[in-house]
Order: sequence, then C-alpha cells, then structure tokens
Amino acid sequence: MRILITNDDGINSIGLHELIKEIEKENEVIVVAPSEQRSACGHSVTLHRPIVIKEVKIDGIKSKAFSVDGTPADCVKIAIDKISSYKFDKIISGINLGYNLGTDVIYSGTVSAAIEGAIYKIPSIAVSLGYDENIELNFSEDKYRLAAEYTNKILKQSSNDRLNDVVLNINVPPIEKNEIKGIKVCELGNRIYQNCYIESPTKEGEIGYKLQGTPKDIDDENTDVYNIKRGYVTITPLHYDLTNFKIIKEVSKWFI
Amino acid sequence: MRILITNDDGINSIGLHELIKEIEKENEVIVVAPSEQRSACGHSVTLHRPIVIKEVKIDGIKSKAFSVDGTPADCVKIAIDKISSYKFDKIISGINLGYNLGTDVIYSGTVSAAIEGAIYKIPSIAVSLGYDENIELNFSEDKYRLAAEYTNKILKQSSNDRLNDVVLNINVPPIEKNEIKGIKVCELGNRIYQNCYIESPTKEGEIGYKLQGTPKDIDDENTDVYNIKRGYVTITPLHYDLTNFKIIKEVSKWFI
Repeated sequence: MRILITNDDGINSIGLHELIKEIEKENEVIVVAPSEQRSACGHSVTLHRPIVIKEVKIDGIKSKAFSVDGTPADCVKIAIDKISSYKFDKIISGINLGYNLGTDVIYSGTVSAAIEGAIYKIPSIAVSLGYDENIELNFSEDKYRLAAEYTNKILKQSSNDRLNDVVLNINVPPIEKNEIKGIKVCELGNRIYQNCYIESPTKEGEIGYKLQGTPKDIDDENTDVYNIKRGYVTITPLHYDLTNFKIIKEVSKWFI
Repeated sequence: MRILITNDDGINSIGLHELIKEIEKENEVIVVAPSEQRSACGHSVTLHRPIVIKEVKIDGIKSKAFSVDGTPADCVKIAIDKISSYKFDKIISGINLGYNLGTDVIYSGTVSAAIEGAIYKIPSIAVSLGYDENIELNFSEDKYRLAAEYTNKILKQSSNDRLNDVVLNINVPPIEKNEIKGIKVCELGNRIYQNCYIESPTKEGEIGYKLQGTPKDIDDENTDVYNIKRGYVTITPLHYDLTNFKIIKEVSKWFI
C-alpha cells in the first residue's frame, strides 16, 4: 500500500519515527508532518499565510519526508494536493504521546489529520499512546514500538475498501506487551474536565492565565475510556458528520 | 437570560457588535471574544502559553466585554471557568462573515465555540452570514442586523432546557429581508473542495504555498447547502459525538 504518515507532535517526535519504521517495512510511505509541536490544534487550517514545505532526512528512515510549517490538517491537504501526484491508500496519524479518548478527540490534531483524510475519502487511522505522568515523559522506545506493531496489525485487518471515509481512532495503554489483554472496538466515552486557569506571567511580563484541566471519566462499559484502563488497545470508528439526527425532528417543530 | 457572546472574527468585528446590540436589548450579555481574527482555527485550544484577558469598551454597547488572545474555544472556557462566577443560559457565537455550511463546520472557529458550550452542557448557537465575493467585503450593517434579528427569533423559539448539549448552526443568506423565504431545519450538506496550493512568498522571502479552494456542493434536498441557495435561513442541529455508530458492528467483526 501507499501510505501517508503524519502527526501533531511534529517531524522530530519519536512516536512518528517508530511508526514510520514499522510501516515502511511492508509499504511505500511518504511522511508529511508539522515542523513543530501542534498539540490541541483541533481541525485548524492555515488560510491567511503561505506555508513552507521542506524536504528533510530523518535518521534511520528510508521514506521521503517533508516538514510543513502548518497544522496536521494542512499536512494532509498539502500531501494530497501539492506533494503527491497519485492517491494514498491509507493515512496514519501518530503516534501521539498522550491518549486521544472520548470527548478529547475534538481538540486533537492527531485525530483531525485522520478526519481530513476521510474527507478526501481515504481511510485513515489515528494512533495515540498513553503516558503515566509518574514515568519519564520521553519513555522507552519499546512502548512506541509496541503501539506501532498494533497499528500495523490493525492496518492489515482493516484493509476494507468499502469503508473509505472512516477513521479508526486507536489508543494504546503504556504497559508491557504481555499485560495487554487484546483489542476492543468501542464507542467514545465521556471525559469531563475540571478546568481551572492558573495565573502565570507571559514572556512579555503581562499577567496571563494557563489552562490546567483534570479529566473525570464517566465509566460506561463499551467506551474507550473504560476499556483502556482495563488493559485493552481500543479502536473507535469515527465519522465527521456533526448533524444531530436524533433531535432534528424535534427542532423542526419549534419553527413551524 | 444570561448570555455569553463570542466569535472567531475577533472583538472588533461588525458582525459581533450587531449581534450584541440585538441580544443585549432583552438579555444580560457578557462578551468574551478573541483579540484578533481567528477564522478556520477549528477546535483549537491554547495549552502551551498563558492567555491574556483584557476588559474592553466597545462603542455603542453597554454589555461587559473582554478580549482574549486565544481561540474561540479558549474564550468559552475562560468565560465559564475564569471570568464568570455563575452559569450562562445560552452561548451565541457570531455573526461570522462567510457561511459555515456542510463539511466546513469542522474547520470553523465560530461553530467550535458553540460546540465548546455544548460540552459544558450549555445550549449554544453559531450564526454565520454569507457573502457574495462580488459585493464589498464590509457590506452594509443592514445584513448583519437582519442576521441578528433572526438569531434573536431563533433564540426565543429554542429556549428548551431539555436540549442542553445541542448546538444550532444558523446560516443567513446575504439577501434583502423580503427575499428571505423562511427558516428551514436541515442536515449538513456536502461541500467538497477543489483545492490547490498557489506559490506565494512568505514575509521572510521564502517560497511558500497558499491554499485556494473552490467549493463544489452536492445538492441533496434537506441539506443546508441546498436550502441556503434557495433563500432560506438554515438551522442545523449539531452534536459532538464523533463515534461512527453505523459501522461499529462491522468494524468489531474485523478483530474477532
């Protein structure tokens, strides 16, 4: 297969490199990733300034790679409309450091890149690896490698052409291989944040406020937030139709 | 009612001011809007730097107003978690200059602010006014005033507490009052973009590429893209659950 790989942590992130190493073994890979960290950028696209594209060489990787000073969604658009002259069979976005579970997917650059792929009718995968704040941030490459292996496995099992506008959102718990209980296909759960803004000076010495949120999960079975805690790799199929069909009839009655 | 008003075109935009003028007549309004233009920022939130909040005075407006150097979703979070000590009954985001129809809602800062409101279980409204590129960009305040009046009407008719996590996405065509055929509650349509990247130098003199997209609408009846062209004010109820329930069973079978 011909596969586009992108992410939101940027072209230099270990998660991206481990993913490429695994996927380029058996596929033709093109890498188009943001030049810097772009977490929580949602489905942002760059309209008001030109975007710079640079071909780069990543150590230990044979695939062609491009760095783009834009968002993950920009990377997908540019890869399809500018860099590549023929179609990708799949798009994979990741491996993100930190889960993208439940309501959080809406803020996620990693997931938005995959959704952008689906808008182009290319089946796409987003993959994120959880981290425990007690462990060192830049933890061992083993965990990324395990997440990459799961991604490759899911990629092979999901090669179903009829579902061309589907995003599979994968989350992998940061545990040992033999502790993983298996794969669960499930719904997005509910993560509600207890947010607060902490006073914090800006670079210019002004008073600013920085967001600190603590997630509170609602533990419904069949959800990703439930199953990830129980040692499963979770897969949630996503779509991008935001129409609320459940209430469209009721809302219609208000305006008759 | 106690209403939070925000937007993505920034605190100085005419659309915002006309909306406030209309809504503050009969409601308590607090304005928290981005300090500058934030179009196409999607559901981006600012995590990596402090955000500066400034109280501002807007000419001709009596409501309290705050400018925030963040995204529309940041504005909603800050309004709820930092600025206001008690709850908003409704959130209104707009009036955006330019439609937010069909697949485009996913990129929209205007719509994302309203979705952020729904995540906090506050019923929210996003409102956008179309513009014809042949007409001057900063067209007459009449058109905004008409869009504001429609928003107020819809606000009153939708005061239904049971639907607390719903977003109503309103689009108003830029035509005369007597040409508007009425209100249609409908689904999001399909806008597919023919994108291309045009070579364009950056400020630093590097070669960059700027996105130019031409929308191609698929004209299904019952959709916003269909009805807006026929002179209706369209309302699409939105949700934020991206789980693709239609295919979850099929995807489950792949991993048994």
